Amino acid sequence: MITERNRASFDTKGLAEYLNGGKEKLQRLGELADLLHQQDWGNKSQRYYQNRQDTYESALKAALGIWKKVITMEDAMEARKLVDFPGGLELHIGMFIPTLLSQASPDQQAEWLPKALGLKLIGTYAQTELGHGTFVRGLQTNATYDPQSQEFVIHTPTLTATKWWPGGLGKTSTHVVAMARLFIKGKDYGPHSFVVPIRDMATHLPLPGIKVGDIGPKFGYNGVDNGYLSFNHVRVPLDNMLMRFSKVTPEGKYVPPPPSNQKASYATMVYVRATIVEGAGWALARSVTIAVRYAAVRRQTAAHAGELEVQVLDYQNTAADLLPLLASSYALIFMGKAGMAMYSEFEADRDRGNFDKLPELHAVLSGMKAVSTTIASDGMEAARRACGGHGYSLLSGLPTTFTHYVQNVTWEGDNNVMLLQTARYLVKQLLAARAGKAGGVGSADYTNNAEAELRQRCPVASSRDWLDPAVQSAAFRHRSARLCVAATDLLASASGGQVAFEGQAWNGNTVDLIRLSRAHCFFVLHSTFADSVQRLSDEGTLPAPTIAALSKLVSLFALSTLSREAGDFLEDGYMTGQQVEWARRQYYGVLRALRPDAVGLADAFGLSDYLLNSALGRADGDVYRALLAAAQASPLNETEEGPAWHSVLKPRLTPRARL
Amino acid sequence: MITERNRASFDTKGLAEYLNGGKEKLQRLGELADLLHQQDWGNKSQRYYQNRQDTYESALKAALGIWKKVITMEDAMEARKLVDFPGGLELHIGMFIPTLLSQASPDQQAEWLPKALGLKLIGTYAQTELGHGTFVRGLQTNATYDPQSQEFVIHTPTLTATKWWPGGLGKTSTHVVAMARLFIKGKDYGPHSFVVPIRDMATHLPLPGIKVGDIGPKFGYNGVDNGYLSFNHVRVPLDNMLMRFSKVTPEGKYVPPPPSNQKASYATMVYVRATIVEGAGWALARSVTIAVRYAAVRRQTAAHAGELEVQVLDYQNTAADLLPLLASSYALIFMGKAGMAMYSEFEADRDRGNFDKLPELHAVLSGMKAVSTTIASDGMEAARRACGGHGYSLLSGLPTTFTHYVQNVTWEGDNNVMLLQTARYLVKQLLAARAGKAGGVGSADYTNNAEAELRQRCPVASSRDWLDPAVQSAAFRHRSARLCVAATDLLASASGGQVAFEGQAWNGNTVDLIRLSRAHCFFVLHSTFADSVQRLSDEGTLPAPTIAALSKLVSLFALSTLSREAGDFLEDGYMTGQQVEWARRQYYGVLRALRPDAVGLADAFGLSDYLLNSALGRADGDVYRALLAAAQASPLNETEEGPAWHSVLKPRLTPRARL
Repeated sequence: MITERNRASFDTKGLAEYLNGGKEKLQRLGELADLLHQQDWGNKSQRYYQNRQDTYESALKAALGIWKKVITMEDAMEARKLVDFPGGLELHIGMFIPTLLSQASPDQQAEWLPKALGLKLIGTYAQTELGHGTFVRGLQTNATYDPQSQEFVIHTPTLTATKWWPGGLGKTSTHVVAMARLFIKGKDYGPHSFVVPIRDMATHLPLPGIKVGDIGPKFGYNGVDNGYLSFNHVRVPLDNMLMRFSKVTPEGKYVPPPPSNQKASYATMVYVRATIVEGAGWALARSVTIAVRYAAVRRQTAAHAGELEVQVLDYQNTAADLLPLLASSYALIFMGKAGMAMYSEFEADRDRGNFDKLPELHAVLSGMKAVSTTIASDGMEAARRACGGHGYSLLSGLPTTFTHYVQNVTWEGDNNVMLLQTARYLVKQLLAARAGKAGGVGSADYTNNAEAELRQRCPVASSRDWLDPAVQSAAFRHRSARLCVAATDLLASASGGQVAFEGQAWNGNTVDLIRLSRAHCFFVLHSTFADSVQRLSDEGTLPAPTIAALSKLVSLFALSTLSREAGDFLEDGYMTGQQVEWARRQYYGVLRALRPDAVGLADAFGLSDYLLNSALGRADGDVYRALLAAAQASPLNETEEGPAWHSVLKPRLTPRARL
Repeated sequence: MITERNRASFDTKGLAEYLNGGKEKLQRLGELADLLHQQDWGNKSQRYYQNRQDTYESALKAALGIWKKVITMEDAMEARKLVDFPGGLELHIGMFIPTLLSQASPDQQAEWLPKALGLKLIGTYAQTELGHGTFVRGLQTNATYDPQSQEFVIHTPTLTATKWWPGGLGKTSTHVVAMARLFIKGKDYGPHSFVVPIRDMATHLPLPGIKVGDIGPKFGYNGVDNGYLSFNHVRVPLDNMLMRFSKVTPEGKYVPPPPSNQKASYATMVYVRATIVEGAGWALARSVTIAVRYAAVRRQTAAHAGELEVQVLDYQNTAADLLPLLASSYALIFMGKAGMAMYSEFEADRDRGNFDKLPELHAVLSGMKAVSTTIASDGMEAARRACGGHGYSLLSGLPTTFTHYVQNVTWEGDNNVMLLQTARYLVKQLLAARAGKAGGVGSADYTNNAEAELRQRCPVASSRDWLDPAVQSAAFRHRSARLCVAATDLLASASGGQVAFEGQAWNGNTVDLIRLSRAHCFFVLHSTFADSVQRLSDEGTLPAPTIAALSKLVSLFALSTLSREAGDFLEDGYMTGQQVEWARRQYYGVLRALRPDAVGLADAFGLSDYLLNSALGRADGDVYRALLAAAQASPLNETEEGPAWHSVLKPRLTPRARL
């Protein structure tokens, strides 16, 4: 492993410091990892052996441990990531408290925030129902105002209206913010938020009218008690509706929210999605770090007896499985950082009353949420499979990294729905441009001259031309523009007149719309990555060898994608077969050029052994000893004869005792 | 769900009978499911809640239950599939006994078979080592013959030589067949098989010199105690080497195996791989049945308030996610059946001394093992994601179906290695044809006129031409031929003279070789599917409406693949952009045409609720009630207050007692 490290062409530590927010920050992460490792609740040695109940308890202890032990808020956030053990407090911290902060009135905040922050109550956020996820307008839980008693009556009218999924709801939370459809005097005002106590504070038993429990075991994330909840005419006081924006008066008059509320909530979504995109990059980086290090240690097959076997990373197909995943991780991390920067710019604009950039930013980050989480999920599983049999062991860390993460394709907006939001935006911009109005801005500005873009042809005249990021970017932009025109025309023809953004015309053409959206996001992802590296070079933030390695990753991201999806570029004649062949040869060339940097680029993520918790991904490369040690510690090995000997095997295997 | 069933255009029951081997067989499967469901060990209601140790014990009980309860061998095999709970006896049944049958001498069989069949001992097959999987020649475990005592000394010389992975080795098996490198008088004769007792028959404790244990928790398959094993100079008698083929005399003379042995072992691999291919189809069918049924039940988003929400299967993208997976399941099942038929033909030939068809059959089924298990694994995860949030719950059956299955991409030959075997065969056939000798036969006969094939162009002149299976097949054949020529030329240029099938020239070009191999397998998969349906039609085995539905699946398999991988057909000008566009429109048309048959085609697999064990995939569609009931039964809900209340939560939440 030291040999592999010495092969790197750049300063891996310097890049790790940059990616992690500076030298001090990276150092602090190391100190935190050491500190956490020493805590009972932070020690990960039993993590892969625990059953569901123990997992739930241990995750809760870990969250409470961090709450108590780690002093600063910044450290606490990093500690949560390092301990990496989501539990019953996840939504208390991530949704309940933030919802109070954003939606409760000052009086309500004064009432509930101190209790929530002091852990005198534990809350969660209950929106999704058994039969309703994405379509919030379809929620069925009711909150009917009773002006006599000045109370709301919260009720679950059907089986499918049972609240389902909220983290920490099953066995941990004492309170929920419930999304329920507000009814006043028979009129339906749509979904609103209500604070509802669900458990007795002394006994933790469900309150009258409440049915609550855990929704059972899941693919991953089993430290969290995702729950179900139904209300049987449960009464809460008027004050329990969150009233920062919309209000209900004691007499039962409804006061709607101010219109600016909508924009603020879009802005919040933009922020959350930028964090998801960067998070996708870091999540993928974990699996890739493990797999790349292992592929440098693992050897398989010698041409001749007695020769040292080949490092599996030296097989072209292994490099082609793993190095593009390295490139994707970097692309996503840079995209997340750029998204955050755009959000900050937007905040500055907003404070001057300028909301112009919000629609494009929101539209791009919707699709980007989907594309980034899909790239990460698929990449994690690909990295796992690249590790062969040992990738199937939980002790590798790879299966659970994947199963914990993969829910990201569904939550915070189902990926297909997210992609369709981006497609809707792009089609609307193209229609606007065609109608002589201003089309898209920023990444979507090609909608303003899409027809001209369609006449463009790839300028590559020799293989090396493919290493120019501008040439790469032009190809991605062309594809987006072409698919935007095609999807718009298709939709127009299916709508038979005015383009419909819902109903049969829309629902029956979602494949091409999703294709467009995905193409747009790849265009943005690549150009953002390329521009970020260029800026770091221009500003001298990172030394030339590091920039050179990152530039190769930009090319790898582009050329592996272009080769894989060549049909999209050939279909309209934008590229020739010869240009595709050149792209493929350059792709293979970049794989070879990056081979010596593979371990260095994994190291540069700066992920600690404590975080990875992987026998295969250890920084020291001592893989086989670690696997055996971890296996030996497994509970099935507690006795030599195993748990089934006396009860099951012995009666069958040994001669029966005489009567 | 009844409405959905009534929409089917064909007799689903008739197709189910055909696919499952006849009316009686399908009925027997139903009876077996009922019988098994009633056994303690066959009841699946606790399956998703068990921890590792309980899973191990329960799986063992299930295997022993089947062993005792089910009388006929055929029933026992079906029962194992239905109970679907692999455990510690898996390799005793699947490898230890078959190895004795194929490799032990008659005397050795007389000694060990009665004990193995009477469960007086339990064996497994120990080949893979911690550091050595695919490369059998690299195994390090030694068996040194000692002529003095007429014993072999079995020894594990290094940490990486520790045996790793054998199923049932950890805590169940009393014996192993160990693959070890035979040394006689200092000479290395390569890997041979030895029966080695590893546990005391009275105490089940490891024998002297043996270190054995479970390798720890895995992604799936946790009922099986995959194990590790090391030998410290363990002595076994001369008779414990399996001597049907190669032999060692008491004086230490080595008698090599007869040359025919190699062909017989190829034939066995062909048989095993045909079962893997059909198994891949059935495995995928499980996830697809669950997902298609759920997508017909699940509704999401109405255009206008108060309207019934849209069945998610009516969104084009959901149909495009799921229906091609239906087509893949059918394609793989028909491929497996055809592979079995080819194997039977080969057996008849072999009995006449004719081995001509073996090399092609072996080569195709190597790659097909890889392609089929990859299609199934990826398809299972895609089906799971298509179910949104509920697909993340273990209660859906989808996560465990995937995690149990996905090891198939690694075991019985790592998929990349398998694909490279097929590529090696194809390149060799092309080189032979170029040298004026006979090239490939059967599916590889295009190697005989590859240059002519390269000049072919797609004959599609209108969109509907794409529905002709011969047109579809020609495209796949053309792609294989082109990639075969390209990979061969590339390899020749990298080898700088004589084409090398190992070393740097080979290892550095595996991406294009794997691409060729995969293309060839898709060609075979599609044409076998199309030919099988045509034969069933010609022979009148199935009625016309069923043939019509199956024909649509053939087109769906072809057109979804051609659309997705269009670049491969555009690159050399075989297809035009217009032809690709037509293929895509026909693909969408087939999706619409198959929509009414979707649930019928899932039903036609004939999979019982007992097998599926899924709240989402129930035949009656009563999904939400089943999810809630299964959640409520989960161990975390055993007490209302949950397992962490007294130990963790209460001390934090309630006011401290006064001192």
